[in-house]
Amino acid sequence: MTNLQNDRFLKALRREPVDKTPVWLMRQAGRYLPEYRKLREKSGSFLKMCKTPELACEVTLQPLARFPLDAAIIFSDILTIPDAMGLELGFVTGEGPKFNKTVSDVESLRALAMPDPEIELRYVMNAIRTTKQALTQRVPLIGFAGSPWTVATYMVEGGSSKTFSKINKMRYQSPALLMQLLEKITTVTTQYLQAQIAAGADAVMIFDTWGGVLTTEAYAQFSLAFMQRIVDDVKHFSENTPIILFTKGGGQWLEKMATTGCHALGLDWTLDINQARSRVGSKVALQGNLEPACLHGDENVIRQQVASILAKYGSGSGHIFNLGHGITPDILPEKVAALVDAVHEMSQQYHQVTVS
Amino acid sequence: MTNLQNDRFLKALRREPVDKTPVWLMRQAGRYLPEYRKLREKSGSFLKMCKTPELACEVTLQPLARFPLDAAIIFSDILTIPDAMGLELGFVTGEGPKFNKTVSDVESLRALAMPDPEIELRYVMNAIRTTKQALTQRVPLIGFAGSPWTVATYMVEGGSSKTFSKINKMRYQSPALLMQLLEKITTVTTQYLQAQIAAGADAVMIFDTWGGVLTTEAYAQFSLAFMQRIVDDVKHFSENTPIILFTKGGGQWLEKMATTGCHALGLDWTLDINQARSRVGSKVALQGNLEPACLHGDENVIRQQVASILAKYGSGSGHIFNLGHGITPDILPEKVAALVDAVHEMSQQYHQVTVS
Repeated sequence: MTNLQNDRFLKALRREPVDKTPVWLMRQAGRYLPEYRKLREKSGSFLKMCKTPELACEVTLQPLARFPLDAAIIFSDILTIPDAMGLELGFVTGEGPKFNKTVSDVESLRALAMPDPEIELRYVMNAIRTTKQALTQRVPLIGFAGSPWTVATYMVEGGSSKTFSKINKMRYQSPALLMQLLEKITTVTTQYLQAQIAAGADAVMIFDTWGGVLTTEAYAQFSLAFMQRIVDDVKHFSENTPIILFTKGGGQWLEKMATTGCHALGLDWTLDINQARSRVGSKVALQGNLEPACLHGDENVIRQQVASILAKYGSGSGHIFNLGHGITPDILPEKVAALVDAVHEMSQQYHQVTVS
Repeated sequence: MTNLQNDRFLKALRREPVDKTPVWLMRQAGRYLPEYRKLREKSGSFLKMCKTPELACEVTLQPLARFPLDAAIIFSDILTIPDAMGLELGFVTGEGPKFNKTVSDVESLRALAMPDPEIELRYVMNAIRTTKQALTQRVPLIGFAGSPWTVATYMVEGGSSKTFSKINKMRYQSPALLMQLLEKITTVTTQYLQAQIAAGADAVMIFDTWGGVLTTEAYAQFSLAFMQRIVDDVKHFSENTPIILFTKGGGQWLEKMATTGCHALGLDWTLDINQARSRVGSKVALQGNLEPACLHGDENVIRQQVASILAKYGSGSGHIFNLGHGITPDILPEKVAALVDAVHEMSQQYHQVTVS
């Protein structure tokens, strides 16, 4: 089915037998790597790296040159979509992303462009094509997008937020406007992920970073319903491409997420992976969920925590080891080396009985 | 047992029959009230208001003059304790609390003072005594403190944090140091809450605002274990004073929280109160859990959401209506009036069968 030299990650997503638990890390191509910081300084900006396929490819491959990771994830950002929809993304040092324009009313909603992924977002597709070629089938390449709800928070707030006061106000005062915004983002995101798959992505992940700030009912209505549509339409486009859903802080809704028909769920570090497996493990694979801060510990601490998560998941396939959130810039690369080695070494005992 | 004219709140905490569901709001004395903003401007600073018993009393009573709330909560801050332990609290406009000193090693831990609540924190006890008198037994007065884990995050980070990188590093690199810090905070907090009860507080609440960022095991070890000790020692001091525990983002741990022997659990807005009741409602009362952003909606929206939460909790006592987190400064006071009236009016049907 694939010509990949290492297809552990894809097999685990399909809950097929593997020799070891595959491992990759959210933000594995990032600031904790000196070679990343060097390239970023040279290139001038984060956005420049995202928008230059050769640089995005180089950054994507950096962690693979250091660690025997089982997957690459394309270096990009969930805010490429609102940027292409016309909000003009910039990054302010120390403050994170800032949009020049926001969505606040019917006019600003109507003014949004509906970008064609192979035109306005062609730089992402080119980055995927370039990276896919450079990978020479060593490991699979993951594509991704933000969930419509999560992307909408940035489009309405104009950047990061702690309180989400503008979008929450919109949700209670103009829910129809918000629904139309989510519709538009969903349409663009679906085409974007389909184009990523056409360009070579072997799996896709939807990051719902802010779904966890909603009530149970609002999560179903404003976040999950739109992810459901993306899952349906991406599967319709490419039945065999695995889809991973990750709602940070969404642990109580795993059952609902699993019924979308996605292949795997990402787990944040607050959840017990044994409980998650007993709740939804017969339907989906699970990705996670070491606490990112654990990488501040020494090698013994890291090995203990890896052993604990592997033991909690237990025997059999369906587990992709990862952090419960992105790796932070203050982590030493050698800690990642220890983590990856620990997963590969200690997980073998859980895959000894090969059932095919 | 009490001479209170309105003891609905205390009865509900003990799951005794009431005529209507009691209601109060976290941060009900706060910036959304014009009279609060006026007094704050006049007095010069938030800390000045906390530290001047007459001003703290005046602010505490402000919302009661407007709305028929069923409880008052003393105007104070969870950071009075680290301030009294010597870290020197200040507030930087737009940035929130900042400490001049932090805890980072054995020396800074040893340098911490162990304040006597009736000496270094006498201003809080005086505020309670003054307010208790001014209340003339109309409604009960709630005292409070932060959980040791939550207070420790500020003491180590030096203020608010999004990433908790310093305390997480400490947790993985010097867990013994962190445990000693938590021990000290626990000792001071226990005496502080006991003194608040002696000064007149009719119930106490422990705010564990940041317990939800921990793993299940770390929550038990670094947060819940210390709250357990406070619950034990406060009950030993005053068996009949109800204790409310609130871990924001701690929904998955309600069962563990309920076994501490506390009287009630606060619920954030992400939880379904019917599920919470079926999980722990036979052990504890439940306080919550309207989404604060709902107050951006019009009166119809507010009434719908109040009706939904009341219906989900269902018949019988044991529910104290509240928001799932503090009210935000951008809410209009008339929305609070609509909320309080809706709770009192619509809850009566759930209390018609008086079982005594």
